[in-house]
Amino acid sequence: MAQALAGQGASRGTVLGRARVRLPHALQIAEQRIAPEQAPAELQRLQHAIAVVRGEMHALRARLHGALAQEVGEFLDLHALLLDDPELLQGLDQLVRDRHYSADYALRVQRDRLASVFEAMDDPYFQSRVEDIDQVIGRIHAALHRRDCELRGFAGEILVAESVAPAEMAQLQAQGVIGIVTTGGSPLGHTAILARSLHMPLVVDCEHALETINDGDALIVDGGSGRVVVEPGPADLRAHRAREREHLRETRALARLRREPTRTRDGVDIRLFANAESQADVAEAHALGAAGVGLYRTEFLFLQRSALPDEDEQFRAYRDVVMGMSGQPVTIRTLDVGADKTDRTGLSLRDEPNPALGLRGIRLSLARRALFRTQLRALLRASAYGRIRLLLPMVSCAEEIAQARAEIAAMAAALRAEGHELAENIPVGVMIEVPAAALALPAFIRDVDFLSVGTNDLVQYLLAVDRNHEGLGRLYTPLHPAVIRVLRDVIRLAQRHGRPIALCGEMAAAPDYAPLLLALGLTDFSLHPGTMLEVRRRIRDCDYAALQARLPALLRARDRDAIERWLANAG
Amino acid sequence: MAQALAGQGASRGTVLGRARVRLPHALQIAEQRIAPEQAPAELQRLQHAIAVVRGEMHALRARLHGALAQEVGEFLDLHALLLDDPELLQGLDQLVRDRHYSADYALRVQRDRLASVFEAMDDPYFQSRVEDIDQVIGRIHAALHRRDCELRGFAGEILVAESVAPAEMAQLQAQGVIGIVTTGGSPLGHTAILARSLHMPLVVDCEHALETINDGDALIVDGGSGRVVVEPGPADLRAHRAREREHLRETRALARLRREPTRTRDGVDIRLFANAESQADVAEAHALGAAGVGLYRTEFLFLQRSALPDEDEQFRAYRDVVMGMSGQPVTIRTLDVGADKTDRTGLSLRDEPNPALGLRGIRLSLARRALFRTQLRALLRASAYGRIRLLLPMVSCAEEIAQARAEIAAMAAALRAEGHELAENIPVGVMIEVPAAALALPAFIRDVDFLSVGTNDLVQYLLAVDRNHEGLGRLYTPLHPAVIRVLRDVIRLAQRHGRPIALCGEMAAAPDYAPLLLALGLTDFSLHPGTMLEVRRRIRDCDYAALQARLPALLRARDRDAIERWLANAG
Repeated sequence: MAQALAGQGASRGTVLGRARVRLPHALQIAEQRIAPEQAPAELQRLQHAIAVVRGEMHALRARLHGALAQEVGEFLDLHALLLDDPELLQGLDQLVRDRHYSADYALRVQRDRLASVFEAMDDPYFQSRVEDIDQVIGRIHAALHRRDCELRGFAGEILVAESVAPAEMAQLQAQGVIGIVTTGGSPLGHTAILARSLHMPLVVDCEHALETINDGDALIVDGGSGRVVVEPGPADLRAHRAREREHLRETRALARLRREPTRTRDGVDIRLFANAESQADVAEAHALGAAGVGLYRTEFLFLQRSALPDEDEQFRAYRDVVMGMSGQPVTIRTLDVGADKTDRTGLSLRDEPNPALGLRGIRLSLARRALFRTQLRALLRASAYGRIRLLLPMVSCAEEIAQARAEIAAMAAALRAEGHELAENIPVGVMIEVPAAALALPAFIRDVDFLSVGTNDLVQYLLAVDRNHEGLGRLYTPLHPAVIRVLRDVIRLAQRHGRPIALCGEMAAAPDYAPLLLALGLTDFSLHPGTMLEVRRRIRDCDYAALQARLPALLRARDRDAIERWLANAG
Repeated sequence: MAQALAGQGASRGTVLGRARVRLPHALQIAEQRIAPEQAPAELQRLQHAIAVVRGEMHALRARLHGALAQEVGEFLDLHALLLDDPELLQGLDQLVRDRHYSADYALRVQRDRLASVFEAMDDPYFQSRVEDIDQVIGRIHAALHRRDCELRGFAGEILVAESVAPAEMAQLQAQGVIGIVTTGGSPLGHTAILARSLHMPLVVDCEHALETINDGDALIVDGGSGRVVVEPGPADLRAHRAREREHLRETRALARLRREPTRTRDGVDIRLFANAESQADVAEAHALGAAGVGLYRTEFLFLQRSALPDEDEQFRAYRDVVMGMSGQPVTIRTLDVGADKTDRTGLSLRDEPNPALGLRGIRLSLARRALFRTQLRALLRASAYGRIRLLLPMVSCAEEIAQARAEIAAMAAALRAEGHELAENIPVGVMIEVPAAALALPAFIRDVDFLSVGTNDLVQYLLAVDRNHEGLGRLYTPLHPAVIRVLRDVIRLAQRHGRPIALCGEMAAAPDYAPLLLALGLTDFSLHPGTMLEVRRRIRDCDYAALQARLPALLRARDRDAIERWLANAG
């Protein structure tokens, strides 16, 4: 019987596939006993499932390579250890052989035993090991019920889980997962952002998914509407095929916009820049007619490695990006890491109670001058190959800009003395993502050449809501009167001072928000190439002057509902 | 030879005492060997020191009672275990006996061995155990060098450490510590706030303290100027006694202000309310002529206990506070806890990556309605005994106010139906501490009866700087143009709408900032009774109209230095 579940669409696309359920903290399996004479067969069934999982994990481990092997491999190794743990295996055997529990029920009882030992430890580290036990037990449980008990990965499957970490996304796609449904999460979280850039259909906040969906169930997942159909009937399949065709048509129609200008109905030209962090992103941006790179993140050069990149390695990476854009401006942001993402950087930052409020971005660069200088030298050298603009992250006060500019000037002088050719007057801009920088902008706007508004962090700090906190999903929203007001003030001030200003947060990548940003006067968007054509299409449907005329109504909106109504009427 | 060190004064008072150095992560002891024939005596010296520490720790454990026993006891138990660890003890013995290391050097080598094992574990839990090892080794090292090797606590000593956690402060005072010097920290951190309320002299940011000061050195610590003198000479001692007398005179002069009005030179009346979290604070506030309680924190009822307080227990606590203020208004803030301070509350919140941006304050109350309703019922019942005002923490949007007001109305109706007497029209106010609430105030000011500005958190979020992050000490400051501008806007808007507005953050408790706050138009301060008289004195020296006239100059200041110059000229 088909059953429909409602979640929030977080990454578009509609897919049909079999469910692979990743169970959360407790297996919901009823007590179930078997006849004593069935015990040997049940035991064999259980041991077979364990062998299958062991094989799966070895195969998965072998398939990983590069950075992924390091990142994901550790978890797999830990799980392999757990799977070979005599306590786990003997406990399971005993429960089936002596107590005549079904294999399923034995799994649950043994899981709860182990979990209670760890949970009682009153230590977050051991408590978190419970998740690993759950994943291993969940895998065995899934293997027990597989129609086809052969070795296989996730290929062609839809993952159903409580949550999916951003770090898992690329791995899941590499393993062949075609769609994801989570009970938690938010369309604005990191995981959703990544899903959109990977074109992986994702439905979040699908409350009853884990209770309703069983491993192996057929699913239709529509990452646009947030609808999930379990064991679809013929009508559902027809509707799915229709949506697939629609999606295809849409994709083709969008593709025709590749060489079209981003111009409103009333003839106002809008510039779409690309957010990028790889050479592939840069190539895609160029192919889509981006006006340049609005945000090139340099973190990927530093993360998931054991030694810091030297000047030459960085120089080559920056030079390649600049040359990839054939003369268009490329905005490169200096290192923006903090204690939340530095496991293997060699930066060895200490634990911080609130990494989002810690030693990040320009603060870290100014605290680690050698690191900063190496990056600046590489960036300045790359400036000889195209139009580089330098962007400083997490600036909160004028003093930081002065210190960074002094370093840039000193490095440029040193490089010229060494005989390097550099561009003249490289523009230096700052991210507007710390509220204090937005509010005190009049105090230092003359010290910067351009601005880039990072709404992801700006909203997080303005609202004091961690944007990756699943329990606060609804509280995190750019549709807050304070956010609207700050954006309006910043955009207006920048324009009055003739400073180019782009918005590079997720807001810019959401076609639905385009009318709101146009009403606020924004003309430069920076977004991942993944949704660039959709945003272009939405902008081409807008009337800039009409939206400007509706700005006062937007500024009067006193809560989220009112802003959503304004958007719904934006035309 | 006397030597002077400069730090930042964080809690006033000047003290003379012996240093007790708590060493941080690495003992700085040079390699030192002894003659083989000295080994037995050195071994005995070492074993004696270990025995002394063991005795000290048992004695300290026995002295603890109540909540402190639970809080601190766990650490002591862990340290006692480490002290009995055969690996530690045998390793030390061997190093002295076989390699002829001095006891000191053996401690360092053995410390580094154990630390490297733990640090290699690549797991934050075990890595953090290194701190415990350091504390235990540090205690043994201190015992080795004590002139008087008898059992003793900290009585009469000045603690010199890298940092002191807020949770340690009360314990240290109970143990007899008379002053504290730290190499890290900020005058605006939690530890400094607590030090001031406990009248414990504290110098923070005293960079070279640990390299310079040895265990047992005589110290003069001036928590006002931030000056620390090591092994003072006769002139230093005379100066110290002069400052002590000065401090005493000042205290007496201040005491005369207890019944004086808080009125500026040009006759503007300012109201000083008290921040309180105990019956003792309330009594002190009343004695100092406070205009009421501006912030009564209810967290103490919930923390450091294993079961949540029921309605009657809360009711009695709130009633006693209200009655203690004899008819003056008492502002009680509903529960403001989050994942950072809930170890034993029974609230069992989950770990959050950024607790400061997490499920805190009103968010938690609205997520745990039963908890919120119990507190509201207790508060409403207490309203029959005096002038209660309800204050909601961490509000970020209008929706939260509407939901909280609905709960208050429902609870009031239910209580009246049960026959309870309640006050009519109990004022409901909100904390202004989330930037979005400050900026969107025009959207919801009509929904609230009064406002209280929590600058501690407001500054933290505006600047995106964790105020307890030692590595960011200088970045955290209320003297930022964005903070000044937000305060000006909020105060002005509240006054225009006839809503009382108080400022209850640490800014209000710093006499030096009083002119700035008066210039911004603030007339209601809320602060711990500890510095109330100093603030009163500073305000009585101010000319309100003159400060108002200098407001435009303050608003033009473009960085911290400029604001500090404004303050220096405030007169």
